[in-house]
Amino acid sequence: MAGRLGILACGGALPVRIAEAVPEAMRLALEGVPTEVEDVEAHRIEKIGGLFDAMRAGGVTRVVFAGGLARPPLDPTQFDATMMQVAPRLMGALQGGDDALLRAVIDVFEDQGFEVIGAHEVLPDLVAKAGHLAGPEPSAQDLRDTERAFDILSALSPVDVGQGCAVAGGLCLGIETLQGTDAILRFVGETPEALRRGQTGVYVKAAKRGQDLRVDMPAVGPATIEAVSAAGLAGLVIEAGRVMVLEREATVAKAEALGVFLTARDA
Amino acid sequence: MAGRLGILACGGALPVRIAEAVPEAMRLALEGVPTEVEDVEAHRIEKIGGLFDAMRAGGVTRVVFAGGLARPPLDPTQFDATMMQVAPRLMGALQGGDDALLRAVIDVFEDQGFEVIGAHEVLPDLVAKAGHLAGPEPSAQDLRDTERAFDILSALSPVDVGQGCAVAGGLCLGIETLQGTDAILRFVGETPEALRRGQTGVYVKAAKRGQDLRVDMPAVGPATIEAVSAAGLAGLVIEAGRVMVLEREATVAKAEALGVFLTARDA
Repeated sequence: MAGRLGILACGGALPVRIAEAVPEAMRLALEGVPTEVEDVEAHRIEKIGGLFDAMRAGGVTRVVFAGGLARPPLDPTQFDATMMQVAPRLMGALQGGDDALLRAVIDVFEDQGFEVIGAHEVLPDLVAKAGHLAGPEPSAQDLRDTERAFDILSALSPVDVGQGCAVAGGLCLGIETLQGTDAILRFVGETPEALRRGQTGVYVKAAKRGQDLRVDMPAVGPATIEAVSAAGLAGLVIEAGRVMVLEREATVAKAEALGVFLTARDA
Repeated sequence: MAGRLGILACGGALPVRIAEAVPEAMRLALEGVPTEVEDVEAHRIEKIGGLFDAMRAGGVTRVVFAGGLARPPLDPTQFDATMMQVAPRLMGALQGGDDALLRAVIDVFEDQGFEVIGAHEVLPDLVAKAGHLAGPEPSAQDLRDTERAFDILSALSPVDVGQGCAVAGGLCLGIETLQGTDAILRFVGETPEALRRGQTGVYVKAAKRGQDLRVDMPAVGPATIEAVSAAGLAGLVIEAGRVMVLEREATVAKAEALGVFLTARDA
């Protein structure tokens, strides 16, 4: 027997879906990090030893972080003994990219004997297989732009930057940084027409090579399709198997309605 | 004797400075591309054969492209025989990044027997040597952020993207794409404070590895300092020897006035 699942629930619909799919799971949350999951047991991050004790007492052996790991403010005067012990490692990792921090968080949970699994391991249909998912067929130029966007993201992978990239007519119009997909797509949409030269272009969303999909999987949804359309792009390409499609039916319907293509392909 | 210099003048103060420094140079321009240089002989890009003939008739053997190469609209029905010949190469290069296009333009001029030189070869003090140029000393965190920004730009070089990058507290806040420095610095300035977590950060401006500095050298000036300051960043770091400082005195004065540091270092 695999042992009881613990769900560390953050915001959004995903932790709700997991909680529904695994009703016997222990529902956990962090104080100050809102979640739509009901009946959660909330712990302060400063008292992480208390969280671990509660998980053990509840028979939890595996844990899934769902909804994206927020960075709650920390009050060091409230640290318990366990948090005192792990804090230096987490603080050090804060200097690096998200990957470094999340890797450190996973290490801390694994050191405590918990197995950390990804949401897509609990709900395999969260990710898409390679293929056309919705909307018109991509043009030959769209395919070339897709290729170039993947090349750019691949070049950035070693430096832990870039989950997304917009390319139009061979020209890079935006690289996703800390601010996220919606912000960079607004930026792309503001590109002066003279620079854009009538090209439509694509947005490619992929996981970084070193990205730990157990805690930090890129995700798209209906709002992403809207943002791609508003940016004047022809379509959204996601990396097969490594990007979550939240609210799949609504996402597909939105793509069809706005005439934006959605495809999944291998990087 | 090196032969007469031709100046292909575009917008801004740089071609004016070159024209002043080399009064015997032939002053050339493209129709539809405004320039502040006076007494220019303007040619249509569609009649590039006529431009080459005029340069030869004027005794020009070396040419400097100054002010950034604009992309004027092309009317293929007006092409002369020479343009007909070189157009396929230029059109093909339009699919790639700026480097590819500029490389093709240089090739065309070189095939015609002209030597293409850079503005910094005519005016060596356009670029800065490594060292502190203005404003407060960078902090230890600023130096770490600078290192990380150079790493990110270096990773992007093979895909011909990224002349600039903002990093604050180890986090990448923006990568310069087609829209240029001012646009990405506005984007950086709009980063929500919750994401930025009180970090100041730096903007690093460097040439791409494959960048041909003869036609496409990155440049900063007083407006760049203003944009860096408005983005909430602590300073601007430029690559020594490979980034032009336009209006050096005004740039240094602006940095001192705004308390923004300006340093040059090797990549």
